[in-house]
Amino acid sequence: MSAFTLGLNTYTVPFRMHSENRERVIANLKAAGISSATVLLEGGKASERDDTDHENLFRQESYFHYLFGVREPGFWGAIDVGTGRTVLFCPRLPEEYAVWMGKISTPEEFKVKYEVDEVLFSDSLEGHLRSEAASKPLLLNKGKNSDSGSTYEPPKLPAFADLETDEGKLFPVLCDSRVFKSPKELDLMAHVSKLTSLSHVHVMRSVKPGMMEYQLEANFSHYSYYNYGCRNMGYTAICACGPNPAVLHYGHAGAPNDRVIREEDMLLLDMGAEYHCYGSDITCSYPASGKFTERQAKVYEGVLNAQRAVFEICRPGTSWVDCHKAAEKEVIKALIGLKVLREVEGVTLDDMVEMRLGGVFMPHGLGHHIGIDTHDVGGYLEGAKSKEKNYPNRLKGPGLKSLRNLRILEENQCLTVEPGCYFIDYTIDKAIEDDELGKFIDVEVVAEFRGTGGVRLEDVIAITADGFVNYTLAPRGVEEVEAVMAGAKWPPTKDVHPELMRKKLLTM
Amino acid sequence: MSAFTLGLNTYTVPFRMHSENRERVIANLKAAGISSATVLLEGGKASERDDTDHENLFRQESYFHYLFGVREPGFWGAIDVGTGRTVLFCPRLPEEYAVWMGKISTPEEFKVKYEVDEVLFSDSLEGHLRSEAASKPLLLNKGKNSDSGSTYEPPKLPAFADLETDEGKLFPVLCDSRVFKSPKELDLMAHVSKLTSLSHVHVMRSVKPGMMEYQLEANFSHYSYYNYGCRNMGYTAICACGPNPAVLHYGHAGAPNDRVIREEDMLLLDMGAEYHCYGSDITCSYPASGKFTERQAKVYEGVLNAQRAVFEICRPGTSWVDCHKAAEKEVIKALIGLKVLREVEGVTLDDMVEMRLGGVFMPHGLGHHIGIDTHDVGGYLEGAKSKEKNYPNRLKGPGLKSLRNLRILEENQCLTVEPGCYFIDYTIDKAIEDDELGKFIDVEVVAEFRGTGGVRLEDVIAITADGFVNYTLAPRGVEEVEAVMAGAKWPPTKDVHPELMRKKLLTM
Repeated sequence: MSAFTLGLNTYTVPFRMHSENRERVIANLKAAGISSATVLLEGGKASERDDTDHENLFRQESYFHYLFGVREPGFWGAIDVGTGRTVLFCPRLPEEYAVWMGKISTPEEFKVKYEVDEVLFSDSLEGHLRSEAASKPLLLNKGKNSDSGSTYEPPKLPAFADLETDEGKLFPVLCDSRVFKSPKELDLMAHVSKLTSLSHVHVMRSVKPGMMEYQLEANFSHYSYYNYGCRNMGYTAICACGPNPAVLHYGHAGAPNDRVIREEDMLLLDMGAEYHCYGSDITCSYPASGKFTERQAKVYEGVLNAQRAVFEICRPGTSWVDCHKAAEKEVIKALIGLKVLREVEGVTLDDMVEMRLGGVFMPHGLGHHIGIDTHDVGGYLEGAKSKEKNYPNRLKGPGLKSLRNLRILEENQCLTVEPGCYFIDYTIDKAIEDDELGKFIDVEVVAEFRGTGGVRLEDVIAITADGFVNYTLAPRGVEEVEAVMAGAKWPPTKDVHPELMRKKLLTM
Repeated sequence: MSAFTLGLNTYTVPFRMHSENRERVIANLKAAGISSATVLLEGGKASERDDTDHENLFRQESYFHYLFGVREPGFWGAIDVGTGRTVLFCPRLPEEYAVWMGKISTPEEFKVKYEVDEVLFSDSLEGHLRSEAASKPLLLNKGKNSDSGSTYEPPKLPAFADLETDEGKLFPVLCDSRVFKSPKELDLMAHVSKLTSLSHVHVMRSVKPGMMEYQLEANFSHYSYYNYGCRNMGYTAICACGPNPAVLHYGHAGAPNDRVIREEDMLLLDMGAEYHCYGSDITCSYPASGKFTERQAKVYEGVLNAQRAVFEICRPGTSWVDCHKAAEKEVIKALIGLKVLREVEGVTLDDMVEMRLGGVFMPHGLGHHIGIDTHDVGGYLEGAKSKEKNYPNRLKGPGLKSLRNLRILEENQCLTVEPGCYFIDYTIDKAIEDDELGKFIDVEVVAEFRGTGGVRLEDVIAITADGFVNYTLAPRGVEEVEAVMAGAKWPPTKDVHPELMRKKLLTM
């Protein structure tokens, strides 16, 4: 049996995971009435920076990785829906490749490595399609990614002129298949989330006022690469202190984690490692000093309560929109407690939620599917139809319009739960000027919070038959965080893992 | 005065460096007879992975960085050749950018930050060109990169229909300007090479048999990021042990530094950090055990002698081809000493070099220009004409055909000197079968070296008025390397820095 591993002490991913993914897609195609067809995908290509010969580190395209797990660029893959027979097509490399890039694997070696039925050279692809796939439609992948708005464009080959091709049927099935993780995929997500959690804990213990934000990014990526073989991060690290947590995607090249950390700062660290192209996405927030001030703790606990409120209803059948609103309600409660928001006679908490007051302090969605992409596919599947499922169009209003997923929760979905509370001048100023929202905001009190950034807590979970399992293993309670920052053991012992405790409480 | 720095303890690059670069280009354009024109370049754009919303970490396009040093995507830049007046065009960002990406800088703020004459929004670019540049030609950059073979394609704008544009004149001048580093660029190259050297020394001290190759990559990138703010590597790290040093570009996604390091292995580590888009490129080779065996030392010292032979002739006026051959000669000498190669009556060492016997064991070129790109531009400038310069076409034969540069050395060129000696089955087998080369190779002796990888030593140097300066600060002598691996201080003291010593010896 073949498997992906980086050797010593790293996690072994069996390639059976990818053949199971293919089996799932075939079953879903058959369920959609397609029983005779060939699925054809082109793998990612090697790329260079601009016009130079600077080779970008290759990372497989996500749909291709899902189906085949191939690590090298320039492959194609074909799956016969009727028989399940899978053929990979590898590039025919020039002999000199051996000098520059390494041993040239033979098709037979790739066949063993990737556990497929056959591997041919890609220069035989069109002939193969003409002979093997001529009698059935060729399913190509084409569709719009609901997070980027970009369209996945299928390849074009001369042979397509002689074959029946379909560009509409595969995409919704592929996306929907990726939404529901297999047991092997869930194991991998649990692994990468655990190592991401422990890398966060390492960073948490290394923080000292006077350090630069980017030094925390350096510590995180070193820990996850050195100890767990994670060469890539799932996304650009957000290491924000002082006012910067209020910039939701801080850390990009224009704002590259380059502020000095001060004693009085709250930190917001949103980082996730990637292993075998499956990534995690975890956010921790804590005070640079190692001790929460009373005010810091109140904001923090508001967000923690928001996460817990979601966990209380997180199970199959729950609407993700309801989860989002449950989180907002706790954030609003905390802000009332801090007197940033004032209660108005006759207006309930639920009314405040519906007015989108939460969107002022948490302008992003509650979370997103996660897997091979950080914002994994399938949040909005316009083409899909199912009585058991619910795929509405995007909602309106701050927060809700940013939801990356509107589905009803189902078993084996893998999601982030990431409520936050931020003090963002732009959204606060707009709310103050707003006729409806303005009256809830205490302009003087909120002014004291401006520039203090914000808090986000982000866990990776998977929905189970009767609830959820939390793959995140980071300290969350105020005392827990303070203890770990002061050097306490983490995880403390097997029995008091707070995530398990929380789950136990929920299932009692 | 504005400058680029990442704060605490990192290096400060004055933005005057970029305005000096512009002045150099203007002077070179004027020398080429162009005194009235507008240079227009488009900066790099933000990009996402495939169809997803995974944002690739933005790194500025190299020509644009050379002229403007802008860190954000989506800019344009225009330089009036007659007056030197420089205008940047920044994207007009939506208000919501402030929520997701951070504070929106005003054109006035960018003007101060980048020390240019004016900053306008990019939606006014075409109007600006029509009014300001209508009476003179617009110089666009178009040309082929001699390392990648790819063409830099200029942008296309509707306004160009009404303007005189030229796509041929700018490219050779821009390339040639980049070849000759200014004092500020040289300071930056010295800095990034020094920190790269010290990061190598850190790695050298951390090596233990049983580690994975990629753990050395992790240690290098952590050290250079944590201590020196280098978020990007100049290129993908090559961390090769055992047979892997014989794969010249080992370390890519298909061969990702994933072998276990064994006691008896030689290591070849080719890694360079990048700071403010200027990169270094240094290779160290040493035994995993910390002690060279006699045979390891002989191969190593052959390569070290090759580097020293180059240093002996490295000065303005020397041909780079002669440097390459001087290195090959020492490699051949070492292989004769090891009895891998046998001497044949009537055939001199120089004859053996001319037969391309060196290309069997060192199939790459001696080195390359270095700067904003690792393989920096200008090695072959077909369009350039100068009596003082020499731009021949590519040579033929192993090694020589891979030279990235055939120029005569001149002051302020920045280059790598990276001789190597590798035991590559493919090139050795071909040579054994070759009528001319086969008779020099002892098949039985060379068999003992197969699978032992190879050695490369790579330094970054700059050509001075009467010689060169070596920016590399890594231990090179066998005893030096063994001492540092055993924990000795490095650099030992100011006075016995071996690179300075070597230079002193050369200039005595």
